[in-house]
Amino acid sequence: MDMKSILEQAEAYDHQLPEFPGGLEVGSQALAAYLDSTILKPDATQEQIHNLCLDAQQYGFAAVCVNPIFTTRVTRFLKGSMVKNCTVVGFPLGAVPTSIKTSEALLYVKEGAEEVDMVIPVGLLKAGSYGYVLSDIAAVAQEAHKHHALLKVILEMGLLERREKIIGCLLSQAAGADFVKTSTGMMAGGATVEDVELMRRVVGKDMGVKAAGGIRSLADARAMLKAGANRLGTSAAVKIVQEAAAETGK
Amino acid sequence: MDMKSILEQAEAYDHQLPEFPGGLEVGSQALAAYLDSTILKPDATQEQIHNLCLDAQQYGFAAVCVNPIFTTRVTRFLKGSMVKNCTVVGFPLGAVPTSIKTSEALLYVKEGAEEVDMVIPVGLLKAGSYGYVLSDIAAVAQEAHKHHALLKVILEMGLLERREKIIGCLLSQAAGADFVKTSTGMMAGGATVEDVELMRRVVGKDMGVKAAGGIRSLADARAMLKAGANRLGTSAAVKIVQEAAAETGK
Repeated sequence: MDMKSILEQAEAYDHQLPEFPGGLEVGSQALAAYLDSTILKPDATQEQIHNLCLDAQQYGFAAVCVNPIFTTRVTRFLKGSMVKNCTVVGFPLGAVPTSIKTSEALLYVKEGAEEVDMVIPVGLLKAGSYGYVLSDIAAVAQEAHKHHALLKVILEMGLLERREKIIGCLLSQAAGADFVKTSTGMMAGGATVEDVELMRRVVGKDMGVKAAGGIRSLADARAMLKAGANRLGTSAAVKIVQEAAAETGK
Repeated sequence: MDMKSILEQAEAYDHQLPEFPGGLEVGSQALAAYLDSTILKPDATQEQIHNLCLDAQQYGFAAVCVNPIFTTRVTRFLKGSMVKNCTVVGFPLGAVPTSIKTSEALLYVKEGAEEVDMVIPVGLLKAGSYGYVLSDIAAVAQEAHKHHALLKVILEMGLLERREKIIGCLLSQAAGADFVKTSTGMMAGGATVEDVELMRRVVGKDMGVKAAGGIRSLADARAMLKAGANRLGTSAAVKIVQEAAAETGK
């Protein structure tokens, strides 16, 4: 899709969003498989990352999401498990040049990353530099896909106007990304039900939507899934599955 | 200095800091030359960066400090002026591999950056991986110096214990960095008078100390200089010099 069509579609969606294709109702026991168990704080230690990986295998989380400095270590810790090795690119500001983002993605997938969560250049989206944003995402998508990794695109919804949110989703889709993701969880507000539903409406049912930032409880998790998310990033993954287990009396 | 000596020195300094070599008293008109006028928020636009550069030239700030996506633009905007072009590496988490930090530094200095503010891998310092931290800083220092750029090392003091702060300063010094810098201004508290004085005592009078994070007023700026800083990173640079000018009735 060319830029003109993308912007026309954004215009139309801003006026009237597509119908909601439906959210997820996930049973307590199946919930873990939707969670990216996440530690991205700068003072995390090797030991904390190791424990994160052990827990992820025990509970069956979708992925662990950690800073790239730990990627090779996670590859070792998760060897033989179903849990995906996820890291971040251009995180959390999105404000490094495209060539650095692609160097990052290439290095991390070679080190074993199976999923890459990149941040868009938020200010350039706001300034209307859509061509730049599209090619920034497309370049990282190409690098990730070449190595069979998934790409999630963090739009930092808390910093965007409604029209910018719609354009961000359409650009991510046009660039071939696998997921749109609400937030870094660091720079602005986290995921909201309204944003997740908007993303799901815009990208339709065939693209992933990851909610992240501020998901602290089972109720938060359920609300996000119901609103259209099919992956949740949270640093409270263990607490959430324990809450779910307590609920079913297990 | 080898690691054993560094740790012995840290031990000694933790018990008794070296004497304070003295702070700076800077007149109102000279203040601008100590300020790095900074915009690092993810939603900054090209226009905001342009205005930052225009103001910096008008007031005679030491540098503008912006995200790397804007470095080539700043090179163009500042052409022929005395204001330095400063950007950031591994920012703000410090948690990308050393090879990404050096790729960043190399690219940015080639694009015209004259000063590079890098973040250390905070968690690895806390975990005692001092050899890693030392070689991480040394690798970026080498890249920066090869191209005649200064390196400032952000320790994120708000996340460190007293002993870790001392070790961070000594590692930066041993690695050949030009400045130690208190904070990113994003991930933990900003600069404190106590931290700045500690840094100045540890690194002595011949290395730079940059205070950053939470410096919003003339009084803040003066307090940091008096405590031993010789560079201040602030997003309120214009406000501060206007306050100083008002004070002198100019």
